[in-house]
Amino acid sequence: MATPPEFPSETATVLDEVVERVRPTAERGEVATYIPTLAGIDPGHFALSVSALDGSTHACGDADVLFSVQSITKIFALTLAVQVTEDHLWERVGREPSGDPFNSLVQLEHERGIPRNPMINSGAIVVADILLDKCDDARATLLELMSELSGAEVGIDEEVLRSESETGTRNRALANLMASFGNLHHPVEQVLGNYFHQSSIMMTARQLSRAIGFLANDGVDPASGKRVLSASGARRVTAVMLTCGTYDAAGEFAFSVGLPCKSGVGGGIVAVVPDQMGICVWSPPLDHAGNSLAGRKALEQLTTELELSIF
Amino acid sequence: MATPPEFPSETATVLDEVVERVRPTAERGEVATYIPTLAGIDPGHFALSVSALDGSTHACGDADVLFSVQSITKIFALTLAVQVTEDHLWERVGREPSGDPFNSLVQLEHERGIPRNPMINSGAIVVADILLDKCDDARATLLELMSELSGAEVGIDEEVLRSESETGTRNRALANLMASFGNLHHPVEQVLGNYFHQSSIMMTARQLSRAIGFLANDGVDPASGKRVLSASGARRVTAVMLTCGTYDAAGEFAFSVGLPCKSGVGGGIVAVVPDQMGICVWSPPLDHAGNSLAGRKALEQLTTELELSIF
Amino acid sequence: MATPPEFPSETATVLDEVVERVRPTAERGEVATYIPTLAGIDPGHFALSVSALDGSTHACGDADVLFSVQSITKIFALTLAVQVTEDHLWERVGREPSGDPFNSLVQLEHERGIPRNPMINSGAIVVADILLDKCDDARATLLELMSELSGAEVGIDEEVLRSESETGTRNRALANLMASFGNLHHPVEQVLGNYFHQSSIMMTARQLSRAIGFLANDGVDPASGKRVLSASGARRVTAVMLTCGTYDAAGEFAFSVGLPCKSGVGGGIVAVVPDQMGICVWSPPLDHAGNSLAGRKALEQLTTELELSIF
Amino acid sequence: MATPPEFPSETATVLDEVVERVRPTAERGEVATYIPTLAGIDPGHFALSVSALDGSTHACGDADVLFSVQSITKIFALTLAVQVTEDHLWERVGREPSGDPFNSLVQLEHERGIPRNPMINSGAIVVADILLDKCDDARATLLELMSELSGAEVGIDEEVLRSESETGTRNRALANLMASFGNLHHPVEQVLGNYFHQSSIMMTARQLSRAIGFLANDGVDPASGKRVLSASGARRVTAVMLTCGTYDAAGEFAFSVGLPCKSGVGGGIVAVVPDQMGICVWSPPLDHAGNSLAGRKALEQLTTELELSIF
Repeated sequence: MATPPEFPSETATVLDEVVERVRPTAERGEVATYIPTLAGIDPGHFALSVSALDGSTHACGDADVLFSVQSITKIFALTLAVQVTEDHLWERVGREPSGDPFNSLVQLEHERGIPRNPMINSGAIVVADILLDKCDDARATLLELMSELSGAEVGIDEEVLRSESETGTRNRALANLMASFGNLHHPVEQVLGNYFHQSSIMMTARQLSRAIGFLANDGVDPASGKRVLSASGARRVTAVMLTCGTYDAAGEFAFSVGLPCKSGVGGGIVAVVPDQMGICVWSPPLDHAGNSLAGRKALEQLTTELELSIF
Repeated sequence: MATPPEFPSETATVLDEVVERVRPTAERGEVATYIPTLAGIDPGHFALSVSALDGSTHACGDADVLFSVQSITKIFALTLAVQVTEDHLWERVGREPSGDPFNSLVQLEHERGIPRNPMINSGAIVVADILLDKCDDARATLLELMSELSGAEVGIDEEVLRSESETGTRNRALANLMASFGNLHHPVEQVLGNYFHQSSIMMTARQLSRAIGFLANDGVDPASGKRVLSASGARRVTAVMLTCGTYDAAGEFAFSVGLPCKSGVGGGIVAVVPDQMGICVWSPPLDHAGNSLAGRKALEQLTTELELSIF
Repeated sequence: MATPPEFPSETATVLDEVVERVRPTAERGEVATYIPTLAGIDPGHFALSVSALDGSTHACGDADVLFSVQSITKIFALTLAVQVTEDHLWERVGREPSGDPFNSLVQLEHERGIPRNPMINSGAIVVADILLDKCDDARATLLELMSELSGAEVGIDEEVLRSESETGTRNRALANLMASFGNLHHPVEQVLGNYFHQSSIMMTARQLSRAIGFLANDGVDPASGKRVLSASGARRVTAVMLTCGTYDAAGEFAFSVGLPCKSGVGGGIVAVVPDQMGICVWSPPLDHAGNSLAGRKALEQLTTELELSIF
Repeated sequence: MATPPEFPSETATVLDEVVERVRPTAERGEVATYIPTLAGIDPGHFALSVSALDGSTHACGDADVLFSVQSITKIFALTLAVQVTEDHLWERVGREPSGDPFNSLVQLEHERGIPRNPMINSGAIVVADILLDKCDDARATLLELMSELSGAEVGIDEEVLRSESETGTRNRALANLMASFGNLHHPVEQVLGNYFHQSSIMMTARQLSRAIGFLANDGVDPASGKRVLSASGARRVTAVMLTCGTYDAAGEFAFSVGLPCKSGVGGGIVAVVPDQMGICVWSPPLDHAGNSLAGRKALEQLTTELELSIF
């Protein structure tokens, strides 16, 4: 393997300065507490990793520390579903922002079991159901995809998996409600087992900024040159990230960050800069909408200073 | 045991005439179809049974045919809960009409897992949870109470129980949602097991019109003279029946029937005439609100002709 | 005119004791503040008036002080509408409890401009629209009815009328929303003019306990012997009071008071004891649901002690 | 004035072919019928105009026919509000997709009179209120801005204005509801007068594709070189267009078109291609979400063929 090219030093300097500036704002957020493993995380962790399409990466802080990616997995699960069955997918899950807290049952009941989009829990549960149909071993297939894209052996945190499964009453409510409308094709507990497995995946910021690169590169993994999605498929997944990827703060992110992003309650956020780079920022304390507080600040500042907004 | 007194013959004549008149209207309704056992019921069944407080009963039609009482059990489960723990009960379930279809999750989410009242599914699931705490064997205790009040050995339909449990995704959604708000104290499946057991009870119209008599008699079972609830306790259960007992048609029933009623999707409806009698009518085809169509018509006509309205 | 019979002295004693006991609880409530005239009311006012069907009345406290009856007028407006056009009435307004705060637009939008019942603002605005059609002078006709039933010249408070009209943005929102669904037949401002006029009526507790008597007397005004509504019409209006008369505390009132009641934000509550009496209690401080706090306590205690519950 | 440069001929050919292909799909839509002037429009009109930042324009079909721009004006009104008072603006209107039909009151009530975003009617009414504060003559100032940007004298259709005002009960409901929460600072009818005036503006597709150019050009009007908004202000308005500009089909537009768009019920849609061009398409028949059916098809095809998506 050839030595990767060097990351542009002026850009690296800007990134380092942004990290210095936003890091203290994390104190105003709160780490997720619904499962013990997340509640026990050190709130002082901070990582920023930016991977250019030429393979060069600039990483700051704890960019090599594994963390619970949580909902960020939803992008990769959606990618897999688009690969195997795009048409049927969109009959069973919508593509509109939810306009409601991320785990709301109201809209799901009103819209007869069809989740608003695949970035909220209910939609990702439908995706998990679809993958059970289309993959011999859905859990292994997803881990393989994420390992390949990140260039690392990706695994799960067994303790998070156990906690998710034990405390997942609200996800059980969502899944049973969808089942009552006929929008799950496998037994509820089997689907949830797959979904909880996805939520328990551990990765580093460096791995994620690389893994997300295919969405910035018209669907082709920049590292391997292999096509993951068609160009239009990649654009569509990216569009869904922008309008739906950050719970009910999607409008706010578009407005102030201007990039397609997906966040997780573990404090990670990935962002796509079309034709340029993949970004991952990680800081566990969350704002009231469930997005990493300092992570969002970092993205705001770096898109402004580097003029990365897609608008 | 002494011969029971005779039922007044003029009243009996009115009842027979009402039955003749309303029976054909059943054709405009639809039997419940969500479980096969209910879907397979003969829609032509019709029964009316009226039990005066002196022990006399007038029964018409299929008054000795067992049917699935379904939600009618909710009154007896509530009675048991009021007996054992009235105070804590009303902290965990409300007393207001739901204003929404009977199994809606919207209100439950909005009101943070506290069901509107114990006559809707979510509220009855909380009652089932409470009884698990307060009774050594909640299923047996409830069957004993209902057997004692009806003067018959009351049992369940195993096939209905199995079907309810297999198809109960919506009730699972309700229960898990309440569990996510901390309003269930036992494991979801254990609570649902008790709840589904309640819904599977079989009784006849004659048994039900007698069993409900204590609510018309200030809380004392007219047959045995034993106190079931305090006078005020009985009045409060009756008030909840009136405002909440017929899904989202409670206002309509108060308006057109004028009696506290509780209906079940098996097509049964019980009604209480304070200080006078207990009534049970059974006709499987339901109206759009889930209440027996001809049953409701019968109650409208007999309260009008016999001037039984409480208003 | 013959001297009215004397009110039973033991009942009078019970009433006086109830008043003594509940009066201090008013301190825990808050007077309505949305218009200055109501906000400026002396919170220490308290009145209880009970009128038996034989014409005897027992009045305590400020029973001869005029107060703003506000929503209590809705009963008399509904009575007038039932007189003139019952059938069409129920196509344009429902009979179900609202299950939501009394001025909510949510349900109104969801149900396409058909208000839940005539006891909430939206429903009363539809009634005001209907009366414009059916009466030559809707305002005068309503005042005449209320004057006749109360045996006094009933008028309005011009200052309240002005305030209601100036601050009535929420009622304007309700009326315009219904107009957008085609459920108002006159110009919005004309309908609201009539509605605000109704809300500005002033009466005393003594007048109200008498005026409501026809609902306890099968539709016949006990004082004049004149029929106001058919017996079944009166029962139906009373049923609507029970299920819908106290905003979203109707279940609570049925449970704890056990009588059909209608309250107003001026602090008045009227209650009907079928075949026995009309009751009015007045104490301006309200509970969180918008009902007179001490008034409700008084009704709870007197129905318990005098065993007046309809259940 | 110098001759404008020529529009690239290959691009022009693609545009012409797209128009040919999508034009017939208009038959599957329905023109807006809520006001007579819109209902009477010839559904066969079709226009596409594309203005590059160098001043060259390619126009097809009825690109010089005036039509009712309706909600498209919301972009220019928002631009004016951002110019004069950005900070206070975002305290009174949100930036999130609504997730509900465009004129829903539900969310507005739930969120206490703060509209979700300035692209829906309620949000635009707040903007109209703000402009009354900040401009001596809000109507004239807006017309001036739009005239300047389009290089034409922009005016209104008096008949549309009259119709809007007469039939605007739903907008009156929205405005009164916001007033009840204190989120309008001027009298409701004055604010609505300004809002209805905005909705009555007439423009051509050619004028609109040019007028929208400043949003593709970092806030600078490409024709005059004058700065209309700061670069970041322009990006933010464009972000709001993308997430909120097409009623509750914003996710769908992002997914299938991939450009920030704003539509009006007159059948017009404008789209911004950052750093490249402004687009306007016009075809009166609407899809179920209220967006021009053939207009949307045209945008889908031209972004695909010309690879204009921002993702």
